[in-house]
Amino acid sequence: MRELMQSIAREQPRINAEIARHLALLPPIARPVAEHVLSAGGKRLRPLLTLLTGRALGCARDDLLYTLGAAVEMLHAATLLHDDILDNSSLRRGRAAAHTVYGSTPVILAGDALLAKALLMVSSFGDARLTACISEAVMRTAEGEMAEFANLRNGAMRHNEYIEIITGKTAWMLRASCELGALSAGADASAAGAAAEFGLELGIAFQMVDDALDFSPSRHTGKPTGGDVREGKATPPLLLYFAALPEKEAAALRGKFASGSFTEEEIAAVSEAILLRGHAEATREMASVHLEKALSALGALPDCPERRILEEMTQYIQRRDL
Amino acid sequence: MRELMQSIAREQPRINAEIARHLALLPPIARPVAEHVLSAGGKRLRPLLTLLTGRALGCARDDLLYTLGAAVEMLHAATLLHDDILDNSSLRRGRAAAHTVYGSTPVILAGDALLAKALLMVSSFGDARLTACISEAVMRTAEGEMAEFANLRNGAMRHNEYIEIITGKTAWMLRASCELGALSAGADASAAGAAAEFGLELGIAFQMVDDALDFSPSRHTGKPTGGDVREGKATPPLLLYFAALPEKEAAALRGKFASGSFTEEEIAAVSEAILLRGHAEATREMASVHLEKALSALGALPDCPERRILEEMTQYIQRRDL
Repeated sequence: MRELMQSIAREQPRINAEIARHLALLPPIARPVAEHVLSAGGKRLRPLLTLLTGRALGCARDDLLYTLGAAVEMLHAATLLHDDILDNSSLRRGRAAAHTVYGSTPVILAGDALLAKALLMVSSFGDARLTACISEAVMRTAEGEMAEFANLRNGAMRHNEYIEIITGKTAWMLRASCELGALSAGADASAAGAAAEFGLELGIAFQMVDDALDFSPSRHTGKPTGGDVREGKATPPLLLYFAALPEKEAAALRGKFASGSFTEEEIAAVSEAILLRGHAEATREMASVHLEKALSALGALPDCPERRILEEMTQYIQRRDL
Repeated sequence: MRELMQSIAREQPRINAEIARHLALLPPIARPVAEHVLSAGGKRLRPLLTLLTGRALGCARDDLLYTLGAAVEMLHAATLLHDDILDNSSLRRGRAAAHTVYGSTPVILAGDALLAKALLMVSSFGDARLTACISEAVMRTAEGEMAEFANLRNGAMRHNEYIEIITGKTAWMLRASCELGALSAGADASAAGAAAEFGLELGIAFQMVDDALDFSPSRHTGKPTGGDVREGKATPPLLLYFAALPEKEAAALRGKFASGSFTEEEIAAVSEAILLRGHAEATREMASVHLEKALSALGALPDCPERRILEEMTQYIQRRDL
């Protein structure tokens, strides 16, 4: 994955400069909140997807690609601001979540301002296809998060419901990152569709690996922390575990999960059992299927250095361990 | 105001049908929340402003005007959804506020989906000026609300700070309603500027009258309810009252307002004193100044039936009593 890592290192400064340039145009009162979440790091994978798909398909307009990439990252940041309030999270990327520093009200509003700013950046190019793509991604993201909320503590969730949730809350924004690049290049419907499909499948896999990682041993204790179980999020490792248990035992655990009455000891025991029985590993294998689909979609793009970096991104997601 | 009332009665059904048509395209999970807030009534003044300014300036494209009007009303509804959570309000237009029915999480997310949908509706026409106008209004609205939050319980707020707050939280969206109409008509910069100024001054006056009405006698008790004092919102009636008191007395009351330690009896006494001393009436007189500016801006529009209805709207705002 050397080329991907080099590409990240090469592009990050300019992506960050572009984000900073637009943050400076936010209403002054919203700026510190937006900067708080956007300066907390992150690899800027979404803007990188826009750059790479755009260039792979022949877009030479760097000004357009960097602005679109920055807009996607800013939209992502807006959703993080709202999410952390919804999840009542205290940490984000290892830093205090914005709402614990600034309070919920300024954070909801700064999220709105950031959302509007990002949509304004995209619409400034006067291309209705770009604006439609990004606006739809915002709607789908909200839809996925609502579906997740509606299924909290549902230990009997079906796989297709899980796929719908993560397609919305995670994959659609990666899909949009790639589609924006393709549209910038003036790609035809077939190439733009392939780029969008690559992003979508990559996003689904990304979230599945994330959900598997929630059950990986903590660096400190050597045991999984079980954060998703505690928050009532039903993800494949837990759903596979329930499905593999004798029905009576599964029903009892689903009941406890539904009522939120798991003790810390039970969460620890369930999380460790999930890890030992290989359900986290099986979730990574699920992700592989989607990464294969992503790779296959990439086949429609011209063979070029950017396509090879995008191919490496599938390996990166497969292997990532934090 | 007969022509205004006829215009409201005539246009409401088509405006509502246009809103309903677009709500049906929202993610199904967001729809009930959006419908809850949008079916609670309201005169649809914002869409009416778009229709009237657009037609006054010669726009014959009804499809464009109704869609833009519906988008503005949907954006307004999105901000109401987020506001009611922020203010922790239990009622909105006489109905239970959405978050008390659906919970905060679905309401924040449905607000996001509605925001994205409205921006998508505007951007679908592929005119960057329309999209820039509406995106800026969303940013300004969030900015005004953040400024209001930052000044909660500030009984020493200056008049220009108050104007900044209401320009953002209320007036900018009315400004955008009018500017969208003018842009649809292909108006030149001077006419579009006049339409925008009309909307802005109308919006400032609208909020001032709203703030005066908070101190009008309740139909049930004959006494003002003092809702804004209770919520810590410093508005002209309260600020004028503080300014007219002997400094020592004013400082003591500002201190209590700042610490949120007013008792219900004190709120009632302050509110009644404000009403008796004419500070609510003085606030309406402040609004008149802005309505005069609005009327003067209207002078730049062609003399036509639509302009006369817009003129009546200034009277309507001057006189409204609920």
